[in-house]
Amino acid sequence: LRNGFAEVIYCAGKTPTQVQGIVQVMRRDGASILGTRASKELFKSVRAIAPEAVYYEDARCIVIDPKKKKQEEPLIAVVCAGTSDIPVAEEAAVTAETFGYPVDRIYDVGVAGLHRLLGEMPRLRQADVVIVIAGMEGALVSVVGGLVDRPVIAVPTSVGYGTSFHGITALLAMLNSCASGVTVVNIDNGFGAAYSACLMLKMNERRINH
Amino acid sequence: LRNGFAEVIYCAGKTPTQVQGIVQVMRRDGASILGTRASKELFKSVRAIAPEAVYYEDARCIVIDPKKKKQEEPLIAVVCAGTSDIPVAEEAAVTAETFGYPVDRIYDVGVAGLHRLLGEMPRLRQADVVIVIAGMEGALVSVVGGLVDRPVIAVPTSVGYGTSFHGITALLAMLNSCASGVTVVNIDNGFGAAYSACLMLKMNERRINH
Amino acid sequence: LRNGFAEVIYCAGKTPTQVQGIVQVMRRDGASILGTRASKELFKSVRAIAPEAVYYEDARCIVIDPKKKKQEEPLIAVVCAGTSDIPVAEEAAVTAETFGYPVDRIYDVGVAGLHRLLGEMPRLRQADVVIVIAGMEGALVSVVGGLVDRPVIAVPTSVGYGTSFHGITALLAMLNSCASGVTVVNIDNGFGAAYSACLMLKMNERRINH
Amino acid sequence: LRNGFAEVIYCAGKTPTQVQGIVQVMRRDGASILGTRASKELFKSVRAIAPEAVYYEDARCIVIDPKKKKQEEPLIAVVCAGTSDIPVAEEAAVTAETFGYPVDRIYDVGVAGLHRLLGEMPRLRQADVVIVIAGMEGALVSVVGGLVDRPVIAVPTSVGYGTSFHGITALLAMLNSCASGVTVVNIDNGFGAAYSACLMLKMNERRINH
Amino acid sequence: LRNGFAEVIYCAGKTPTQVQGIVQVMRRDGASILGTRASKELFKSVRAIAPEAVYYEDARCIVIDPKKKKQEEPLIAVVCAGTSDIPVAEEAAVTAETFGYPVDRIYDVGVAGLHRLLGEMPRLRQADVVIVIAGMEGALVSVVGGLVDRPVIAVPTSVGYGTSFHGITALLAMLNSCASGVTVVNIDNGFGAAYSACLMLKMNERRINH
Amino acid sequence: LRNGFAEVIYCAGKTPTQVQGIVQVMRRDGASILGTRASKELFKSVRAIAPEAVYYEDARCIVIDPKKKKQEEPLIAVVCAGTSDIPVAEEAAVTAETFGYPVDRIYDVGVAGLHRLLGEMPRLRQADVVIVIAGMEGALVSVVGGLVDRPVIAVPTSVGYGTSFHGITALLAMLNSCASGVTVVNIDNGFGAAYSACLMLKMNERRINH
Amino acid sequence: LRNGFAEVIYCAGKTPTQVQGIVQVMRRDGASILGTRASKELFKSVRAIAPEAVYYEDARCIVIDPKKKKQEEPLIAVVCAGTSDIPVAEEAAVTAETFGYPVDRIYDVGVAGLHRLLGEMPRLRQADVVIVIAGMEGALVSVVGGLVDRPVIAVPTSVGYGTSFHGITALLAMLNSCASGVTVVNIDNGFGAAYSACLMLKMNERRINH
Amino acid sequence: LRNGFAEVIYCAGKTPTQVQGIVQVMRRDGASILGTRASKELFKSVRAIAPEAVYYEDARCIVIDPKKKKQEEPLIAVVCAGTSDIPVAEEAAVTAETFGYPVDRIYDVGVAGLHRLLGEMPRLRQADVVIVIAGMEGALVSVVGGLVDRPVIAVPTSVGYGTSFHGITALLAMLNSCASGVTVVNIDNGFGAAYSACLMLKMNERRINH
Ligand SMILES: Nc1ncnc2c1ncn2[C@@H]1O[C@H](COP(=O)(O)O)[C@@H](O)[C@H]1O
Ligand SMILES: Nc1ncnc2c1ncn2[C@@H]1O[C@H](COP(=O)(O)O)[C@@H](O)[C@H]1O
Ligand SMILES: Nc1ncnc2c1ncn2[C@@H]1O[C@H](COP(=O)(O)O)[C@@H](O)[C@H]1O
Ligand SMILES: Nc1ncnc2c1ncn2[C@@H]1O[C@H](COP(=O)(O)O)[C@@H](O)[C@H]1O
Ligand SMILES: [Mg+2]
Ligand SMILES: [Mg+2]
Ligand SMILES: [Mg+2]
Ligand SMILES: [Mg+2]
Ligand SMILES: [Mg+2]
Ligand SMILES: [Mg+2]
Ligand SMILES: [Mg+2]
Ligand SMILES: [Mg+2]
Repeated sequence: LRNGFAEVIYCAGKTPTQVQGIVQVMRRDGASILGTRASKELFKSVRAIAPEAVYYEDARCIVIDPKKKKQEEPLIAVVCAGTSDIPVAEEAAVTAETFGYPVDRIYDVGVAGLHRLLGEMPRLRQADVVIVIAGMEGALVSVVGGLVDRPVIAVPTSVGYGTSFHGITALLAMLNSCASGVTVVNIDNGFGAAYSACLMLKMNERRINH
Repeated sequence: LRNGFAEVIYCAGKTPTQVQGIVQVMRRDGASILGTRASKELFKSVRAIAPEAVYYEDARCIVIDPKKKKQEEPLIAVVCAGTSDIPVAEEAAVTAETFGYPVDRIYDVGVAGLHRLLGEMPRLRQADVVIVIAGMEGALVSVVGGLVDRPVIAVPTSVGYGTSFHGITALLAMLNSCASGVTVVNIDNGFGAAYSACLMLKMNERRINH
Repeated sequence: LRNGFAEVIYCAGKTPTQVQGIVQVMRRDGASILGTRASKELFKSVRAIAPEAVYYEDARCIVIDPKKKKQEEPLIAVVCAGTSDIPVAEEAAVTAETFGYPVDRIYDVGVAGLHRLLGEMPRLRQADVVIVIAGMEGALVSVVGGLVDRPVIAVPTSVGYGTSFHGITALLAMLNSCASGVTVVNIDNGFGAAYSACLMLKMNERRINH
Repeated sequence: LRNGFAEVIYCAGKTPTQVQGIVQVMRRDGASILGTRASKELFKSVRAIAPEAVYYEDARCIVIDPKKKKQEEPLIAVVCAGTSDIPVAEEAAVTAETFGYPVDRIYDVGVAGLHRLLGEMPRLRQADVVIVIAGMEGALVSVVGGLVDRPVIAVPTSVGYGTSFHGITALLAMLNSCASGVTVVNIDNGFGAAYSACLMLKMNERRINH
Repeated sequence: LRNGFAEVIYCAGKTPTQVQGIVQVMRRDGASILGTRASKELFKSVRAIAPEAVYYEDARCIVIDPKKKKQEEPLIAVVCAGTSDIPVAEEAAVTAETFGYPVDRIYDVGVAGLHRLLGEMPRLRQADVVIVIAGMEGALVSVVGGLVDRPVIAVPTSVGYGTSFHGITALLAMLNSCASGVTVVNIDNGFGAAYSACLMLKMNERRINH
Repeated sequence: LRNGFAEVIYCAGKTPTQVQGIVQVMRRDGASILGTRASKELFKSVRAIAPEAVYYEDARCIVIDPKKKKQEEPLIAVVCAGTSDIPVAEEAAVTAETFGYPVDRIYDVGVAGLHRLLGEMPRLRQADVVIVIAGMEGALVSVVGGLVDRPVIAVPTSVGYGTSFHGITALLAMLNSCASGVTVVNIDNGFGAAYSACLMLKMNERRINH
Repeated sequence: LRNGFAEVIYCAGKTPTQVQGIVQVMRRDGASILGTRASKELFKSVRAIAPEAVYYEDARCIVIDPKKKKQEEPLIAVVCAGTSDIPVAEEAAVTAETFGYPVDRIYDVGVAGLHRLLGEMPRLRQADVVIVIAGMEGALVSVVGGLVDRPVIAVPTSVGYGTSFHGITALLAMLNSCASGVTVVNIDNGFGAAYSACLMLKMNERRINH
Repeated sequence: LRNGFAEVIYCAGKTPTQVQGIVQVMRRDGASILGTRASKELFKSVRAIAPEAVYYEDARCIVIDPKKKKQEEPLIAVVCAGTSDIPVAEEAAVTAETFGYPVDRIYDVGVAGLHRLLGEMPRLRQADVVIVIAGMEGALVSVVGGLVDRPVIAVPTSVGYGTSFHGITALLAMLNSCASGVTVVNIDNGFGAAYSACLMLKMNERRINH
């Protein structure tokens, strides 16, 4: 268990038999398991050998024996722009929760309706790390980045059409954010954003315990 | 005079002699003249033959005999994100003013400091058309587009480095704005944005006089 | 109702249940509703809860309780190059009509047969705003832009093959139009073009009533 | 002399000494010589060893002992959109003339002012082959292609800024022309267009003499 | 009948009913008809109303009442690299034949086996115009262009995988051919290549009859 | 002082007079100041009005009155692959130090000589956050990411030639790192990486003091 | 049999009948045959006419009468990063084995777990040529290239999502490898890598026998 | 000395002082040294401290104490298309010679004049490894690859204009070569090609001595 969080299986392109095999090996050591990009069908074959497995449909994640949730703090805010971004947001949220960190979901606060976002400032200010998830032009990242002084991890999504280029436009916008303190992960990589957020909080804990 | 505004000379890549020749022909008909993308050197050779010519250094524009300014309304707001965007903003503003339309310059209101922009809402709401100029990730367009219900013309600028790709990122972001009511022009094309804004107001006048 | 036109639902990627829910909330306030990118199947589930809903097949739009049509003027011309561009043209036309603005459809006037377009000049000259819709090389935009002195909103379509790159070529051509007065929206975004056109005319009305 | 027209030297990136050497070898066989992409300085060193050499400044071509001009027919029309396209147009025209074929130059007929182009239809109809040269969005190619039933060779130029991408936009537009009968060469390749046009006319002659 | 060859219907994306309608109108004037990108199913519905229609399966073309074939000369050579390029080659060949011009098919002569190509030189030398069709790296165009002194029209195909980028690599290679006398059309555009080839030969005839 | 670290001036494209003006305003409030992308000439004009200013040549940074350095922990490791990456590495290191955080520089440990990197593992393991800076193929990021369980911030540099595409290849590689826990900033953005690293440590402190 | 190894059929896009025909012709001369990119269905129709044909499912290869395996040396190592890369790795391995060269498969040694790779150094050092296969960021190539002083042939795979761009990112990374001695083939081209590896060993044999 | 050939310094972007320092350290161990991408000025400062240094102007290489040349065999052929490719070809040739391997230079054999290349077949057939260097469309690689059964290493050069995209077109063409047995290196990377070629021959020697 390299990271101390959980064993992770990237299920895309793996057969049910392959995933079952991996799960069985991992369960031997009693590790928590997170399976991402998993279809409902795949989940069923996992549940057949690991009845305690839980499926998060929006997140497309399988979770087995997640870490015990830490006290309310530290806190990761997962912010997203529109309803189409929710699957990626949920992949991030479920990943963090499986790793034991509490999450505050602040969804559907795209900048076209700025008042909605501004109304959520109190919740945003509670967070230690903010994950911002957006497709299309990804402007939400810059606005949030300007409003908080916490690390912002930006996740471009493949939401949009035409020149959204399956997330490239959002990615480029995020890399060029005029707000400082923003780092970026691959398109639709909710898992990776949460993983990095948890590493930030874990580093933090180590130092507190130090 | 196809457009009824002024004769326009795109000076980039033209020799002083060529521009002088064009100016002389145009002056015969007493037209207003706007020269864009003009260096100070080029201006000097124009002034030699047209002493009434005025040079706008930031805008890089030469203006001869501009249209008389209309009463305060209608109004074009020219909004820009950072100081590096000012040359493009000024190209837009000088173009509109040369064509006879009043301009309200709202500069340096990038979204990383959202309070600055929100503080300018009263001025923004006065405008009939809003030109928004931004480089990097161009998020200002979406925020302004969400705040006003006027036509927004977005101008991406070549400001930025690395993956700003000389304005491509801003352009793509603007084309994918989650705010409705945004149309876009070529990178750094302050002139074109103002031209379109003036056409909108002119159409408007025609209908008022109708 | 931020824009005063109608509530808009972008239906692509939403389930029937989700759209039904949104429609029900919106209907409570008696708003006009426009659903874009809607399949016939989706329409059927909307009609089940809103019998007054109408489906425009070419446009792929659902309309509920559209705005009352204004007197013949102001007028939006929707111009398109070929038959494959009609779905996008209809999305634009239905949007404008739902918002209450009359539309003149001038279809199948691509520049390969220039006489057809020139024959429609009288109709083109009646328009207050012109929406030009074309795929492939998008040359129609420049020709129309040169012929009229009204705002031209260009919509690139994903029509073509090979190096048409699903609309990128048309988009780039339109952004580089040698005709002044052209602004551009995202590929296939008939809705956005009409929305901007209506904002131009609405601004106009406000000023008339002023 | 593989092509029967003239020896051709692409001078870009060659030193004066290299070009002098090549010219001397070629002159031994008494061939006509065309040097393209040649600076005035390069010309001077060529003239030093070949006093009959002539320099075409706009075209950036050196010509030595061109082919005798054929009777007025066959005829190549070289059509271009704007003044910035003239260097490429002249490269095409000087190439064709050096190879012995008469050229009709129809310049500055961009589609933003369609009446200019339409006014030149009689000259266009005289041509056997039409070379169309344009930058920016390259719409001239489609309009000309629709008006004539001769082979049209399209040359995109690197004229423009921002998303003109140094000629890529014009190139893509030309490859996607809705007019049939258009073939395309590399950006700024006036020489290549003329070479192909002359091959068409030469094939033609062979068949006449047959 | 703008071109004097035949009426052409680009069938991709048209419904059987639409194509039937177009065919009926065209048949009224007794025109020859070429339908490209037509499936076998589409053909069946065309044959139902025009029993003389013929279907070319490899070419995916429907032909009705083709032009009478001219005497053996002039001649178009259609050359292709591999068996996967044959559909595009056949689209070119059937187009030319429908327009009345004889075609010599020289297939499967890719440069990896140069002897095959060199063995076909006698046939290549008979041609008045050469259409070269290749995917992958498109090297065949440069080799053929170097071997013949006829106009070469290059057609990149979408054959290949990975960085062949669905024909972009072949297209770029052809635009940069080190052989002079090559012009290029859109990816997979066998029709367009043949159309241009026929225009070259037709220009030729006009001049012969002159 | 939005971030609590220092006022930051991005000097690229600003005139000496502009920067002097900005510095003077900022000094009024006694803020620490960091000027990035500053030439030596620019530094001289800043020193003329702020004699305490210090210039870091490799980093191209001007620093005035930096934050007092915190005790040795927390620690940011700045790791880079080759000597050409040092300017970006130094921009990161000087930024962090100006903000008060200690830095461990681990330079010239590119993966072509893996033993060098492995020899530095003890230092790497001391760090709370790791900034990895690399051009060309950016493989160092994945190797470091696999070796440590701390947050890794990756900075692609524009070092390389040909298909390094001025940093795009390194950027893409970093976004696709097979190691989890990696987030990415814009090309050559050493400043942004350090800013985010400091935000992580600051969040951490807040929680310790909590 | 141009290469002395075997006849090769690239089966993608060929019908069963076509492949059967090709196999029959090739079998007449008793050649070894390798069919790549072959589905199981295609294999069945080949086996119907060539019962000795064997199918390699992971590799998607059909093999008939492979070359006799040479003594253990020379040796090709086929190294791959993750399980998703195995199909490409197997295409390489089966190709080499069909051509008579022994292969050592070293799979699942991606750099995120560097110890796995370092543990395989003894096997790597036995190889005469190393084929490295990786998707995503392709960092494995640089690490292996730095560890061995044998020719390394890099094969980017289309494994990954978002900005992996179906293998382009891995390809670019490999072309820019900071390790010397790396050459690259097309995305997913396991066959081509093995072919080149075998040519290297064959050249070698020729010189030994010399 | 990792590779057993020579120490290599990539001089681009290094100051004279830096290179002098590196040379001095390397000379201590008596290693052969190859400096690539070196200007004449840089050479002078190297010669000041290492008088035995030799400068190869076309190759832009500094060589100190090269390896003793091996007997005539094994042999690397360095083949290039045009005179503009010679600097890259010389970088390859000088690299191989410095490493001790004999080189046969076969220059100016581009495919537009195929007879020149075919005339050099006897020399080509002598080679153990063939390096092919070409810009523009890079077709030479496929033709040579089809003619020889030796490993071919392809080097795309940045020679060309317009859509040659500084070598990208040649690179893509080479990656898609229809000839088997071709591997590719970065644009203009003559050094890398020669390094790989020498590794192939060295592997060979090891096995002979075995
Ligand atoms: N959704 C995801 N996106 C990106 N990387 C992931 C994702 N889920 C898991 N991973 C990574 O993939 C690794 C497992 O890959 P594999 O061994 O192919 O199952 C994990 O260690 C994670 O680093
Ligand atoms: N066809 C369309 N293209 C682009 N944007 C659209 C389209 N239809 C609706 N929209 C926008 O999408 C918003 C609704 O998005 P949603 O909340 O996801 O339904 C509307 O307010 C419009 O601004
Ligand atoms: N395969 C093809 N590729 C490109 N253009 C074609 C093709 N077939 C027909 N065309 C063109 O498309 C026009 C007909 O388009 P449409 O009116 O949509 O049927 C014809 O006049 C041709 O110029
Ligand atoms: N998987 C592959 N990837 C790339 N090229 C291949 C592959 N398999 C076979 N080839 C090449 O394709 C040629 C056969 O192509 P074909 O004549 O279309 O069957 C062979 O000589 C090989 O050079
Ligand atoms: Mg912030
Ligand atoms: Mg708005
Ligand atoms: Mg106009
Ligand atoms: Mg025509
Ligand atoms: Mg030729
Ligand atoms: Mg890690
Ligand atoms: Mg090595
Ligand atoms: Mg070969």
